[in-house]
Amino acid sequence: MEPTVGTTILTTPTDREIRIERVFDAPRDLVWRAFTEPGLVAQWWGRGHQLDIERDEVEGGGHWRYVEHHPGGIDGFEGRYREVTPPARIARTFEWDGMPGYVSVETADFEDLGGGRTRLVAVVQFPTPEERDGMMGSGMEGGMNESYAALDRLLASMR
Amino acid sequence: MEPTVGTTILTTPTDREIRIERVFDAPRDLVWRAFTEPGLVAQWWGRGHQLDIERDEVEGGGHWRYVEHHPGGIDGFEGRYREVTPPARIARTFEWDGMPGYVSVETADFEDLGGGRTRLVAVVQFPTPEERDGMMGSGMEGGMNESYAALDRLLASMR
Repeated sequence: MEPTVGTTILTTPTDREIRIERVFDAPRDLVWRAFTEPGLVAQWWGRGHQLDIERDEVEGGGHWRYVEHHPGGIDGFEGRYREVTPPARIARTFEWDGMPGYVSVETADFEDLGGGRTRLVAVVQFPTPEERDGMMGSGMEGGMNESYAALDRLLASMR
Repeated sequence: MEPTVGTTILTTPTDREIRIERVFDAPRDLVWRAFTEPGLVAQWWGRGHQLDIERDEVEGGGHWRYVEHHPGGIDGFEGRYREVTPPARIARTFEWDGMPGYVSVETADFEDLGGGRTRLVAVVQFPTPEERDGMMGSGMEGGMNESYAALDRLLASMR
């Protein structure tokens, strides 16, 4: 089933994983830039809130750290790049300051669908089912959709 | 079965874990110090090689980074503390620069056996069985025993 632009399909392939699929109405090179250029990441990843990109070394072994300033406070997120293969794949670890030492791995694949559209398939692997379920119960899906909506707007402005 | 001082018992409780048990001929407070004071960690963790403790914030959320200088080159290791409960438990993540983004979680429990002896039980959890098996096939057990032998010597010198 082909997802509609603007709709996220979230599934759970195993008890430790979340799979996210979304189609963007933008060519793959543009989507890649939005995920890898700090000045662009800052415009969507934080759901419209101020986002400080403290570190973003987009290459295998590089570290990243983003700090989001939202009405409820400040939240830091960080990790390390496992694989960066432009413009097709990014794999990196993810850790929230609120639960330090609890690390998930995000693998994002970008597929050129032709016609100026791009499919993102992201699989997030957690160490345990409990951590996966904790993340799903945390309001993560709502926050993610706010981020993707901001990304849709950014991509539209870049075309 | 009670392990002998100087012998490591390594088992595999699940297909993603390694369990390590070793008894030290030293009181728990001394063993705790050897694991948490950078000047002492530097004397055993690197198996007798030069070890630079670039960062070691021993508290929940703190980061650590050690760099070992050995005859074959230089290897960096790093991670973040999940839990530090003196003098009983340390849980932290572990990542080798050679495989960035592949993160295991080490949970070390220290038990006071009385009579000036301490039991360490460390469980290392890997994201996948393949990563666990890769680590076990890497010569990790030999390196670990060299480190523990250096720790035995350090503890003897501290008594």
